[in-house]
Amino acid sequence: MRAADIIRTKRDGGELTAAEIDSFVRGATTGAAWAPYQLSALLMAVFLRGMSPGETAHLTRAMADSGKVLDLSDIPGPKVDKHSTGGVGDKTSLILGPLAAACGVIVPMMSGRGLGHSGGTLDKLESIPGFRVGLSEAEFRSALRNVGIGMIGQTSDVAPADKTLYAMRDVTSTVESIPLITASILSKKIAEGINGLVMDVKCGHGAFMKTRSSARQLAESLVRVGTANGLKTVAMLTAMDVPLGRYVGNTLEVIESIETLKGNGPRDLTELSVLLAAQMVKLAGLAEDDDEATRKVQTALYSGAGLEVFRRCVEEQGGDPHTLDDYSRLPTTHRTMLVVAPRSGFVSEMVAGAIGVASMVLGGGRERAEDGVDHAVGIICRAKPGEKVRAGDTIYEVHYRSSAKMMAALPLLEESFTLADTPPVIEPILMEELA
Amino acid sequence: MRAADIIRTKRDGGELTAAEIDSFVRGATTGAAWAPYQLSALLMAVFLRGMSPGETAHLTRAMADSGKVLDLSDIPGPKVDKHSTGGVGDKTSLILGPLAAACGVIVPMMSGRGLGHSGGTLDKLESIPGFRVGLSEAEFRSALRNVGIGMIGQTSDVAPADKTLYAMRDVTSTVESIPLITASILSKKIAEGINGLVMDVKCGHGAFMKTRSSARQLAESLVRVGTANGLKTVAMLTAMDVPLGRYVGNTLEVIESIETLKGNGPRDLTELSVLLAAQMVKLAGLAEDDDEATRKVQTALYSGAGLEVFRRCVEEQGGDPHTLDDYSRLPTTHRTMLVVAPRSGFVSEMVAGAIGVASMVLGGGRERAEDGVDHAVGIICRAKPGEKVRAGDTIYEVHYRSSAKMMAALPLLEESFTLADTPPVIEPILMEELA
Repeated sequence: MRAADIIRTKRDGGELTAAEIDSFVRGATTGAAWAPYQLSALLMAVFLRGMSPGETAHLTRAMADSGKVLDLSDIPGPKVDKHSTGGVGDKTSLILGPLAAACGVIVPMMSGRGLGHSGGTLDKLESIPGFRVGLSEAEFRSALRNVGIGMIGQTSDVAPADKTLYAMRDVTSTVESIPLITASILSKKIAEGINGLVMDVKCGHGAFMKTRSSARQLAESLVRVGTANGLKTVAMLTAMDVPLGRYVGNTLEVIESIETLKGNGPRDLTELSVLLAAQMVKLAGLAEDDDEATRKVQTALYSGAGLEVFRRCVEEQGGDPHTLDDYSRLPTTHRTMLVVAPRSGFVSEMVAGAIGVASMVLGGGRERAEDGVDHAVGIICRAKPGEKVRAGDTIYEVHYRSSAKMMAALPLLEESFTLADTPPVIEPILMEELA
Repeated sequence: MRAADIIRTKRDGGELTAAEIDSFVRGATTGAAWAPYQLSALLMAVFLRGMSPGETAHLTRAMADSGKVLDLSDIPGPKVDKHSTGGVGDKTSLILGPLAAACGVIVPMMSGRGLGHSGGTLDKLESIPGFRVGLSEAEFRSALRNVGIGMIGQTSDVAPADKTLYAMRDVTSTVESIPLITASILSKKIAEGINGLVMDVKCGHGAFMKTRSSARQLAESLVRVGTANGLKTVAMLTAMDVPLGRYVGNTLEVIESIETLKGNGPRDLTELSVLLAAQMVKLAGLAEDDDEATRKVQTALYSGAGLEVFRRCVEEQGGDPHTLDDYSRLPTTHRTMLVVAPRSGFVSEMVAGAIGVASMVLGGGRERAEDGVDHAVGIICRAKPGEKVRAGDTIYEVHYRSSAKMMAALPLLEESFTLADTPPVIEPILMEELA
């Protein structure tokens, strides 16, 4: 079985066998029999010719098996995680993870770092002084047993084939491929040793998938391929045209998450967090239907049980639990600037992508994977679509450190919102549910 | 201008600018700004998305300019070459080169070596004891001035971008792409410093292009792209289902070429050699029309002027000119075996590709570019399609060295011909002419 023959089969639109896919993944893992330029040629052929659900399922499994797959069967309880395809202001993991754990779900959450205009859960958590996302496996297992949730980074032995291919896809323009995205996401989730997965597939200007049809395609692929690999998977298509909640930036998003766990969160963020946590509870078999699951999660939220789990999680992972009561313990820039409404009217649009890029430009996100982040910078949306403002009212409160970066972000922010004389129609955040 | 952006444009079916193509070719030449896996990703995108004539023309020029382009303007006379896409028993270069030179054409012929079932001009020439295909540029120029023809290999400074891409295409299954084939062939021909090119595009089972429509597509592309680069180009579509002439193998083909230059050649080989040489004479501006050009070439053939040029060429390049009169000076195996007709009938089919592979298996050709060849082995087709044989008559006379290799070649040969009770229809060798 030569690499060139496997490439030819896919080039001509054929279906790869399990053995052929295994050869490719082994090549990506060890370099055996596949040169890098052969890997990328196959990636481009897959990009342009596609993969069947069966091929994608096998690719996913082979990529998971290229590295360590956790076996959590010795930890009692159903293991369920949530994964989002990435948005602006999307801090639901910090909220729904503790809520689901408070309901009895074991949540072994392995996340990535932010890239481009999307934030990353790890960067947010590291805003909390002392918080360690690099737990050893033993520490991670302890966290799951003791708290019901562990929030860590993917270690280098998780799906190494994905690491090679992911880096290569970026520089060979083979990123936006449904089978390749599916395999990349799910191989890492399978490696967590979970039984169920709730996928939040974002759709809109601020998301990777801009159109409803492409988002639905990805969601369908994720559900099909997850299920084929023995992972109970549901997918929610949710709107990402506007930032989720009001706070964008690492520290700021931690604050808004804690406030939400205290019951003071903005409506959209609270609603989505409860919705996704309820799906986790249902997948875990801890509720009969959506209503029961939602009730359980709301109880965890309004009783403070979720907040309590988050506090214990922070403590377990070495973070300062007093930050939950005293936000001044979190990093801050001490410098803020206001972007105000030039006239009166209703905020009718707010371009999530532009705000995400502005936050990155301020130093809060990464342009390249090797960059560091400034946890303190970010943007608070003091007005959001549907809200009425008068001339001079604050639209954005910008937390910045460098004046030069502030100046670079300013035009993006000034052009990111629109005022109108009549209130806009606000669409519901949940667009569709696939299971 | 990032490689990933250029790849994306082609991936999405867009047209690359001259600057983008230059960047790619520079990357293939020096490695600057393009990793090998980016080159191959673009190759696959080009394979699946194609290239416009304008893109192909620019790619061709950029690949030629990636290395040394000969300037032969100080040598008087029109410079015209012929190139074949490769067939079995195709030794026309050894015949038409001297014939065209005898008519006043300057023939700066740079050839490749054989690969797979196709023979290579260099391997054939090296059957002649002492013949040097590795002339220095000064020696090559002397040959052109003194004899009117030089037959050499491509030096490493000719189209280095093609060398990188050609090697990569083989192992990434991106070979059979009209724009990539066009650029590969013509970049090396442009580097010869010629004014005109006659392309022999082979079509049939024994050729790279199996179908008439694919051969015509390639021929059209070659004519269009050659012309766009200031190279007068004509293309002949010629049949390659049956070996050309009767002799296959390096020494054997040299013998048949000399016999043809002596006027004793088989009809198909003589006809095609005269036809292609006449096109060269016409392109060189040395004849008004096909008739005049053909008359001139026939005169060169039957007067012995072509043979005389070949003799001087052999001498000029260090070869033993006495081989032209005494074939026993050429390498021989001293071992022959006969494949005979199992019954009486007409030879109705003879699969060129199988005979080419058999010759390679005997040691006369290369499976990989780094292999050596045995000049002495080969196959003489004692009967060809249309000819009547009786049971026991020789079909093939096989010149072999290793019995094991002979045994490996035998089943290929035994299955390569068909006998029928009625004579087959023999199609003309020239299928189509494009200019």
